[in-house]
Amino acid sequence: MKPTAAILSVGNEILRGSVVNTNAAFLGRELSGLGFEVVSHGVCADSQEAIRFRLGEVLRRVELIIMMGGLGPTPDDVTREGIAAHFKVPLVFSAQQYSRLLKVYKRYGKRVPPLVKREAFYPENAKPLINRFGIALGFSIETGSKIVIALPGVPSELQNMYFDVVLPFLKKKYGDLFKGRKLIVRMAGISEPDVMKKLGKDFFDDQLDFGIYPSAGEIAIRILADRADVLARLKKKIATRLKDRIYGWDETPFSVVIGNILTKKKQTLAIAESCTGGLLASRITACPGASAYFHGGVVTYHLSAKTDLGVPEKLIKEYGEVSAQVAIQLAKSVRIRMGSSFGIGITGVAGPGGGSSKKPVGLVYIGLASPDGTVRAWKHIFWGERHQIQDKAATKALEYLWRKIR
Amino acid sequence: MKPTAAILSVGNEILRGSVVNTNAAFLGRELSGLGFEVVSHGVCADSQEAIRFRLGEVLRRVELIIMMGGLGPTPDDVTREGIAAHFKVPLVFSAQQYSRLLKVYKRYGKRVPPLVKREAFYPENAKPLINRFGIALGFSIETGSKIVIALPGVPSELQNMYFDVVLPFLKKKYGDLFKGRKLIVRMAGISEPDVMKKLGKDFFDDQLDFGIYPSAGEIAIRILADRADVLARLKKKIATRLKDRIYGWDETPFSVVIGNILTKKKQTLAIAESCTGGLLASRITACPGASAYFHGGVVTYHLSAKTDLGVPEKLIKEYGEVSAQVAIQLAKSVRIRMGSSFGIGITGVAGPGGGSSKKPVGLVYIGLASPDGTVRAWKHIFWGERHQIQDKAATKALEYLWRKIR
Repeated sequence: MKPTAAILSVGNEILRGSVVNTNAAFLGRELSGLGFEVVSHGVCADSQEAIRFRLGEVLRRVELIIMMGGLGPTPDDVTREGIAAHFKVPLVFSAQQYSRLLKVYKRYGKRVPPLVKREAFYPENAKPLINRFGIALGFSIETGSKIVIALPGVPSELQNMYFDVVLPFLKKKYGDLFKGRKLIVRMAGISEPDVMKKLGKDFFDDQLDFGIYPSAGEIAIRILADRADVLARLKKKIATRLKDRIYGWDETPFSVVIGNILTKKKQTLAIAESCTGGLLASRITACPGASAYFHGGVVTYHLSAKTDLGVPEKLIKEYGEVSAQVAIQLAKSVRIRMGSSFGIGITGVAGPGGGSSKKPVGLVYIGLASPDGTVRAWKHIFWGERHQIQDKAATKALEYLWRKIR
Repeated sequence: MKPTAAILSVGNEILRGSVVNTNAAFLGRELSGLGFEVVSHGVCADSQEAIRFRLGEVLRRVELIIMMGGLGPTPDDVTREGIAAHFKVPLVFSAQQYSRLLKVYKRYGKRVPPLVKREAFYPENAKPLINRFGIALGFSIETGSKIVIALPGVPSELQNMYFDVVLPFLKKKYGDLFKGRKLIVRMAGISEPDVMKKLGKDFFDDQLDFGIYPSAGEIAIRILADRADVLARLKKKIATRLKDRIYGWDETPFSVVIGNILTKKKQTLAIAESCTGGLLASRITACPGASAYFHGGVVTYHLSAKTDLGVPEKLIKEYGEVSAQVAIQLAKSVRIRMGSSFGIGITGVAGPGGGSSKKPVGLVYIGLASPDGTVRAWKHIFWGERHQIQDKAATKALEYLWRKIR
């Protein structure tokens, strides 16, 4: 039997839909990956009474609850108080957390605002979980066979604290029973139905927990199986059946996988983006270490930005801004301008306006100029809204580069 | 008193985080906008027993439940059965829905697969809600003063059905009592504690539902109040006390607010980004209409990209790539290169590597060159991780531009 877990978010902003609850998805993925049976997600209001009530309700049914949100400094942050009320204990003060706060504020020549002091408190029956990534203190409570963990709701803080303090805590508590039973596969350039078809029906003969997660031109598969030999067999099947689509066997982002190859080969990249408007550059530079291989980019939104980069005005007039010819010239020009090994050029119609029957919304050309002197362009029509078209175009450009260098 | 509502999603894929629950955010926004007090979101497993149990639990506390997911054709779709079990009624068959299915499949020259027939069933005490956007039938149940609505989980179907059948149903049922009681304020360049301080304690004398939502250099406030005159008074107080920080009174993103001002003034923008690596450009181009005012950008990641843009190598050698002088030159050069009214230059240390005691991680210079010939730079030390530093720097750059043009 798997241990059971629940995720409980606190926050009116989530209830009212001002914020999409990505935290719950993150924790759901992590906890089920560890081997927990996640039996519920819940969201409750910023109210001491609501928190107290929901915590009691959920705690009856599961072994582990991870709560998040409502640990900030303002009066509507009452998760500390709600949890303490459930356990009928007072709040106590963490001198260690407070001295951290003093240091952080001192660095900026400021004093700790009185409201912020609240963030150093925790329920008396809890153990503080130091937050190295922000201001709010987290904490854990063990009560009988049950565990309650409270974390801040800011997604980056939550995720960092999860890996920094929660994961080690859970591994210590529940043992390492889940080791080697998780398999991750990351792919590009294939659709969800095609993955299923290529895997075949016999793939599912084994007892396994299978998840397939498409996102803007990429597919991830996550598999949990009880036995290591089963997982090894599945891995072999996947490697054979989906071979040339697989770019990774762990959570490393596509842009980093590509960056690592380029860095190893001492090759560099520059990009000229029109319809993706900087999205590809920002995805690449979001990851540390990009400076090792990324020379830079040009967002050629306006016509003059394209001609300035070196795309002949005549070419644009003849074929249009959205054309294979322009994508190729963008790739060639940015490669020369930035002195890089590879150049990528992207031009298209992201919509919702600007489409025509000949050049509809979603039409995107991707050009790739390589150090061997070759240059190519590919045509795509991506489906979806503006941001989906931009997302898919950026991923597809990475895919062509990856096919060239891997 | 507002009527209370809960949102209950069904699906293992949500529990395990394979899917982010955007449906709950959508319905949370819609229902609170209508005037419901949304008191909980929940997610439960694809199990008849779990659905029956959770429905009972939630229905005790609220007047309206909207459920979604688990209405598909496969054996793990058991929402129909779970709800029928709660009400102890059998499932019945909708001939009308089935004839729709026959027509849909016939259009593609296919017969209705036996599994799909399940999607024409609904609990005996329900009224069918015809789904014109997909296959699965929705339904509503009225029982005493309580209402349960079940909708398919595919986001586009859910949203379309909401506007097509649910919203008219709710308006008929609850009337149009909720108009004009919501206040939104969006600000930049102020911290959460400072907002609270400037609002003052007396601000909270009125009976109100107050939420404050910080995100990377921006703050949003959302207030719901029972009476229109209270809301008007609060709006006046906010306008006076937070005056010069407020960039909007609705959900329009900061970059669009700025874009609208530029478009109106027939002015244009170009940006040169180093440490933000295209993030600012991609934020601007994520919104339709950017081409009206955005000329383009340069991601000057590598030294040579900076000199190529027109930053003298001597200047970089003397002051360093991360300096006020370089930020100013980036802004000036990109403005000239792209022929725009305004030029923004951003250079900094996003980390985690590359910092020094003199130029620590988080140090960012932002330059702004204006059509009046002035050019200025500002120095900041942002706190957080790489992506937070990038996020805050991008917002801060928008803020300086906004202060100049508003």
